Amino acid sequence: MKILLIGAHGTIGRAVHALLAPRHEILTVGRNSGELRADLTQPQTLAAMFKAAGPVDAIVSTAGNLHFGPLSEMTAEQFNRGLQDKLLGQVQLALLGQQWLRDGGSITLTSGIVATEPIRHGSNASTVNAAIDAFVAAAAVELQRGQRINAVSPTLLTESAQAYGAVFPGFETVPAQRVALAYQRSIEGVQTGRVYRVHG
Amino acid sequence: MKILLIGAHGTIGRAVHALLAPRHEILTVGRNSGELRADLTQPQTLAAMFKAAGPVDAIVSTAGNLHFGPLSEMTAEQFNRGLQDKLLGQVQLALLGQQWLRDGGSITLTSGIVATEPIRHGSNASTVNAAIDAFVAAAAVELQRGQRINAVSPTLLTESAQAYGAVFPGFETVPAQRVALAYQRSIEGVQTGRVYRVHG
Repeated sequence: MKILLIGAHGTIGRAVHALLAPRHEILTVGRNSGELRADLTQPQTLAAMFKAAGPVDAIVSTAGNLHFGPLSEMTAEQFNRGLQDKLLGQVQLALLGQQWLRDGGSITLTSGIVATEPIRHGSNASTVNAAIDAFVAAAAVELQRGQRINAVSPTLLTESAQAYGAVFPGFETVPAQRVALAYQRSIEGVQTGRVYRVHG
Repeated sequence: MKILLIGAHGTIGRAVHALLAPRHEILTVGRNSGELRADLTQPQTLAAMFKAAGPVDAIVSTAGNLHFGPLSEMTAEQFNRGLQDKLLGQVQLALLGQQWLRDGGSITLTSGIVATEPIRHGSNASTVNAAIDAFVAAAAVELQRGQRINAVSPTLLTESAQAYGAVFPGFETVPAQRVALAYQRSIEGVQTGRVYRVHG
């Protein structure tokens, strides 16, 4: 398969690449690195990316930024940053991607455990991640030509535990290598509208 | 209680008003009608509304627009309209409202059944409504001074069945009067972070 991997430079992206590269042709995409450059918050870069890539069998996003901060001080502008980046950026990938995805191809987006397990300062993250989970369920019933769409919802990565463990007290972590398997299920499997939860 | 009711002119808003007005002081708010005027997509009108209302015991929103349309033709701009209106507008109500809400006061937002039950042309609606449900769960763990936040998730209203029944095939409908009870539970009850599903 020809797979477009957006966020290829991140911890999850690298693990997905390592797992799939032996059997598939992967086009890596990042904001500042990769064979193609694109930024979820810059719609024209996504359109240019698809044009440069041509038809693909799978679109995978392991990208997206959120706003973290105390609810008591949060502004709508800050909240909107997460909406525009991790949520609308990934939605835009799917909306544009339909046109470039071959029959039976798949779209795999990334959400996260805080969709259902709120953490301190995480109201934007919970909102955006739950929105992504709902989007794939709803988009799946409308995609055509056998196209599929799923999300992977990871818990805190073992690789990120040192940096972010304090805001995820008592959460089990999983290594990126295990999370990568969920992307493989989405890409090489047959399901659609699914959220693959890798929560421990 | 002094209750700020945004969307007071809508079908649900009128039912909430009818149920609560005998026992509470209600300030009605709408885009084009009501004692105060405000528009969820115009942040400065929300700030002005709170200033005009002063401290309140409950903030209730029965307002918010979404984009409906086929996924195959949807643009990010169209999708963003629902994000900016029903989602970010209601989030903004909560973010600003914290400052105007008395100790122990409640915020009640409105989502909808398509958060978990996708319908044709409803990918924006599913996304936005699920996002609202997750937002109240996440915001609830951070609100201070005993403030509470919940959402009401109605199914198709009996009053709207003639207009929208075709896109909700086989969905049970409920009269707005029944949906209004869920707002009462949120306002007069003790729970927080809850989604009151009135799905049939």
